[in-house]
Amino acid sequence: MPKVAESTVRRLSLYLRFLEEFEGQGIATVSSGALASRGGTTSAQVRKDLSFFGSFGKRGLGYPVPELADQLREILGLKRRYRVGMIGAGKIGSALVQYRGFRQRGFDIIAIFDSDTSKIGRQWNGLTICDISALERELTKQPIDMAVLVTPAEAAQPVADRLVGLGVKAILNFAPVQLVVPDDVVVKTVNLALELETLSYALASR
Amino acid sequence: MPKVAESTVRRLSLYLRFLEEFEGQGIATVSSGALASRGGTTSAQVRKDLSFFGSFGKRGLGYPVPELADQLREILGLKRRYRVGMIGAGKIGSALVQYRGFRQRGFDIIAIFDSDTSKIGRQWNGLTICDISALERELTKQPIDMAVLVTPAEAAQPVADRLVGLGVKAILNFAPVQLVVPDDVVVKTVNLALELETLSYALASR
Repeated sequence: MPKVAESTVRRLSLYLRFLEEFEGQGIATVSSGALASRGGTTSAQVRKDLSFFGSFGKRGLGYPVPELADQLREILGLKRRYRVGMIGAGKIGSALVQYRGFRQRGFDIIAIFDSDTSKIGRQWNGLTICDISALERELTKQPIDMAVLVTPAEAAQPVADRLVGLGVKAILNFAPVQLVVPDDVVVKTVNLALELETLSYALASR
Repeated sequence: MPKVAESTVRRLSLYLRFLEEFEGQGIATVSSGALASRGGTTSAQVRKDLSFFGSFGKRGLGYPVPELADQLREILGLKRRYRVGMIGAGKIGSALVQYRGFRQRGFDIIAIFDSDTSKIGRQWNGLTICDISALERELTKQPIDMAVLVTPAEAAQPVADRLVGLGVKAILNFAPVQLVVPDDVVVKTVNLALELETLSYALASR
């Protein structure tokens, strides 16, 4: 597969959402222009994004909605389910474990870990919060495909090192640190304050 | 001010975090190489990112840490505080209102709205959850600089329209929709499932 920019991958995810909406409305074919206007981009951008992955649709006829949706699911690795471990049972963790968007997309949180003895043993969404000291034992019994890291900043790198040691290849990191991981591990960091800073920059640069 | 890419702005936010760490450690000057290695980028990238905004530091001497941090705060619009309204008192909203990273960066949530009568009137972090029907009245009494939207998908656009009507120029949107707003309003959409999809793509494209 080609090496494509993350911005392209994000747009593919959005196109898939729009295609699913169109599918729900019984729309059979869609033009690049319609996909573009729904996503606030241009039809040239839509065609370019899709061209990385092959030839879709027919000139003048548009894209067949269910087929293109299916191909995007294939490209995005969404034709399977993923077992996700969550490390950190704080407020953000609590919101994420109940977030329906994950399960709808095929991401099942199957284990939760924390170091706080007042949290260990509690039930969250049918899952028992495990002691982080049992991380290796639990994840050997029930391996995960991805980890969501919602620990305090100082705990994030040591926990990431342990996850890497367990063979985890994908980490979604909410801790406000840049994790250092081997080249074959993919990390995506979400920093919520930083999202607000892109807004304050936009306001300040007017 | 120049029009710079969002990816540049995000790196500036990260550089500021690293500079504040260095400052806390009593480090007076830092090279572009040190900033780069802390942030997983190259010194050429650091110099290019900063060059958009003027000339910083002296060749061979590096950047003066407190001064550069201060200039980045100026560029990012972080030398003031922002009044933030939160629309939606669900699980993600509950996590965000208690998220210390916002206040640390100058973003104060000063009002919360919901349409659920079982939530209206409750106290969250010292704030009373207001009825969304009183949005115009409340935000006229106490105007906000930014809104955080954590409503269900179908409510997001109508609420965004009302916020725009109230003069709000910046929206952080967690609802899984693309909002349509006038050109002078900046919207940043955070889609948590989409973050996991960038990981599933990376795993699938190996």
